[in-house]
Amino acid sequence: MSSIELTGYQGDTICAVSTPPGRGGIAVIRVSGSEALEIVQRRWQGKPLAEMATHTVHFGNLTDSAGDVLDQAVLTVFKAPNSFTGEDVVELACHGSTWIQQQVVQALIDAGCRHATAGEFTRRAFANGRMDLSQAEAVADVIEAQSRAAHHVAMSQMRGRYSDELKGLREKLLHFVALIELELDFSEEDVTFADRGEVTALARDIHALISRLADSYRDGNAIRNGMPVAIVGQTNAGKSTLLNALLRDDRALVSDIHGTTRDTIEDTVVMGGTLFRFIDTAGIRQSSDTVEQMGIERSWQALDKATIVLWVIDSTRPDDIATMAHDIVSRCEGKRLIAVLNKTDLGDAQDAENQLNKILSTLRPHQGEDLQPQNPSGELPQVTAISAKRESDIEALRDLIVRTATLPDVDSDAVIVTNARHYQALTRARDAIARAIDGLTNGLTNGLSGDLLDQDIRECLHWLGEITGEITTDNILGEIFAHFCVGK
Amino acid sequence: MSSIELTGYQGDTICAVSTPPGRGGIAVIRVSGSEALEIVQRRWQGKPLAEMATHTVHFGNLTDSAGDVLDQAVLTVFKAPNSFTGEDVVELACHGSTWIQQQVVQALIDAGCRHATAGEFTRRAFANGRMDLSQAEAVADVIEAQSRAAHHVAMSQMRGRYSDELKGLREKLLHFVALIELELDFSEEDVTFADRGEVTALARDIHALISRLADSYRDGNAIRNGMPVAIVGQTNAGKSTLLNALLRDDRALVSDIHGTTRDTIEDTVVMGGTLFRFIDTAGIRQSSDTVEQMGIERSWQALDKATIVLWVIDSTRPDDIATMAHDIVSRCEGKRLIAVLNKTDLGDAQDAENQLNKILSTLRPHQGEDLQPQNPSGELPQVTAISAKRESDIEALRDLIVRTATLPDVDSDAVIVTNARHYQALTRARDAIARAIDGLTNGLTNGLSGDLLDQDIRECLHWLGEITGEITTDNILGEIFAHFCVGK
Repeated sequence: MSSIELTGYQGDTICAVSTPPGRGGIAVIRVSGSEALEIVQRRWQGKPLAEMATHTVHFGNLTDSAGDVLDQAVLTVFKAPNSFTGEDVVELACHGSTWIQQQVVQALIDAGCRHATAGEFTRRAFANGRMDLSQAEAVADVIEAQSRAAHHVAMSQMRGRYSDELKGLREKLLHFVALIELELDFSEEDVTFADRGEVTALARDIHALISRLADSYRDGNAIRNGMPVAIVGQTNAGKSTLLNALLRDDRALVSDIHGTTRDTIEDTVVMGGTLFRFIDTAGIRQSSDTVEQMGIERSWQALDKATIVLWVIDSTRPDDIATMAHDIVSRCEGKRLIAVLNKTDLGDAQDAENQLNKILSTLRPHQGEDLQPQNPSGELPQVTAISAKRESDIEALRDLIVRTATLPDVDSDAVIVTNARHYQALTRARDAIARAIDGLTNGLTNGLSGDLLDQDIRECLHWLGEITGEITTDNILGEIFAHFCVGK
Repeated sequence: MSSIELTGYQGDTICAVSTPPGRGGIAVIRVSGSEALEIVQRRWQGKPLAEMATHTVHFGNLTDSAGDVLDQAVLTVFKAPNSFTGEDVVELACHGSTWIQQQVVQALIDAGCRHATAGEFTRRAFANGRMDLSQAEAVADVIEAQSRAAHHVAMSQMRGRYSDELKGLREKLLHFVALIELELDFSEEDVTFADRGEVTALARDIHALISRLADSYRDGNAIRNGMPVAIVGQTNAGKSTLLNALLRDDRALVSDIHGTTRDTIEDTVVMGGTLFRFIDTAGIRQSSDTVEQMGIERSWQALDKATIVLWVIDSTRPDDIATMAHDIVSRCEGKRLIAVLNKTDLGDAQDAENQLNKILSTLRPHQGEDLQPQNPSGELPQVTAISAKRESDIEALRDLIVRTATLPDVDSDAVIVTNARHYQALTRARDAIARAIDGLTNGLTNGLSGDLLDQDIRECLHWLGEITGEITTDNILGEIFAHFCVGK
């Protein structure tokens, strides 16, 4: 359970630079806590802070501990509880030199502040009930968002759409508890329901809602972390050259994915408003070398996790196609597969295309079978020819990838889960409600344990409460806010 | 003359991100101009801007042109003339994602803003008489300042100390003009003065004041751009290794000097609170190769411009010392010379040190001669032994460099000129007043031309006016503000 009071929390006074690191026109240093006004007053030449109305802006000088002027600054006062954190907050807009930023923070620390830890301002906003935990987490997502879709989903979560949905679920669960308690006689072990049908229907309704949220994570993860695109193929087919060609124009928007292993090379890029995560893999070939086999196994694993697969083919070696085709096509069921005939700079790709189509036609028997939902049309691979080296036809490939990647309509009101922690909690909540349904159904014949039913529902409530932060621990909070930037 | 009105200027409405580039907790987007309030209103969901009092802060939503919410933001209103630019200004504090920053700027542009050019906000502050040109230039210097001294000098200039000094000079010049006009009879070509002594004394006083300002530029340039330290010596003495060793610990603070040629390698670093600019030079040796001779000539030029010279000596080749000693010592008159015996990892540097001292003693006759003011004690080179490769005794060398670099006391009230443009204007103003003095003095015998005297004084006033921006052109202004960051 939370060790933080949920109302009227005013902690010790913290400060940090809240604007991006580096040099700019303006930098904003935020101060929050019970002594924010008094501490800033010690470094302020201008109208006394005690006389300032909340939400007003004042011009004056910031000084160091010796009283020397560090900067001319614009000071904004937000008095508790009407601030981001719910505490007294002072924001100091200084000139954005790195030297000034360092000195002003140091001067505030000398005057009695503590330097804020990562996400500590947002953590206080949560502690003060200014937002629930899923909203607090969305603050970080809003800041990290690189695409329209990621921004839209994070913004919707920050503004409370997701919290509302969870609140609705919680109410249904409490209604469920109430229905059960009407019927349960805890003095006996076994129970019967006046209207078992209504109770079971409600449980199934809750299960469906939680399932929909949990299932949205596949798309949500793609939106937030990038739609995974594996680049696979034989050695020397030109996979890394293709990755570079795809990324080149947008290098400014490229960033590393934090926390991923470096076994495969990953890079993200926004194309057509969608964030893609390209995964370059080790070349696949027959090999008796153990280390190389491990690398090849990782390539297959990358393919398994991808939504889109770019199969890069050396079009000068059409005879090689047959050796890979079956494995790739069979492992790409339910994925979107694009066959990329590379090296058109070395000659016509027509031979290779003919060869490929011939082989693909033999692999067609899958059509008509029960296909995975992600590939409902059961379409054959798209085929395109390029030269990665000369960067020919890369634009067309990009367009093809963008058209292939169909994300859900983020403008609809449907909530999309993007957070792995939430997904885990939802999965556990779903398991709990599934057990309850199982108990209700099997109870018809085996007798239903009221204690177990009660425990399942409580567990379901617990996991939903972990998402919104009604139920949490310092460990969980520490973990969550450690991923924030300092100053937020 | 300036083509910009100096009072009540309200231009078209401009916007830009004013905080450092990149991602952070908060980003601030500034909007300034006659339509700032109306334009932001088109993208604002919250209290109407027209109803907001100046210097107040409001919470609301920013939308895109389709009316979709881009972000929750904190909006601050500054109504003309009480703003940084003197125009109506709106500052929008958004979440600091790069995506949001781009989208908000785009939404404002769609609503009628123009994207601000570099320094355009400060240029408007100047145009509106909120600051003179030397103060506006100091805004950029404040943001660039990396050391306490550079910050102190820039802050003093921004706060108007320098402008006050120039104002004082201007008043003295106008008094001078008044004195002359009392005496001049312009119907005759030649003039005499009732009290030529008083007039000449005043002119000399003005000359001394301008000279002091112009002379302060040597120190001011060192404070602002780094004290120049040339690293010279024979080829393979270990100069580049030494540069790397000196810079290594402080890489985070190292930056390129903009606009310098790449003939020599330069890097700046703050040591002991002082900014140093290290200049690595081509190795000096006898050479008949024309290209190499040109490189060697540039090494000597770098030495000539330096305040401190590090003469790097390969201590395993003591016999080489004699071939360079005379040239270096004689060219370092008026500079601070440090002889660095390198390669102690390869053996004792004692032989080299003995050899060096022996040679230096033969070069001593300079003592007692009239020395340059920069080396008033006429001291011999400092000698220290290091291993650049092993980074041994680098710390001691650093300390020696810091102790050797004596900058003026920036805490005194004396104004220090740091700007090359100002230095040039001051030099020209000094030349003009010198001509006036010359005319006054020689006029005793040759007859004084009143027209020429008048012209000299006007020219002197002109150059001082160029510094403060009373006299300026669009070209000069364009040149100055082009070096600002966008958003300031």
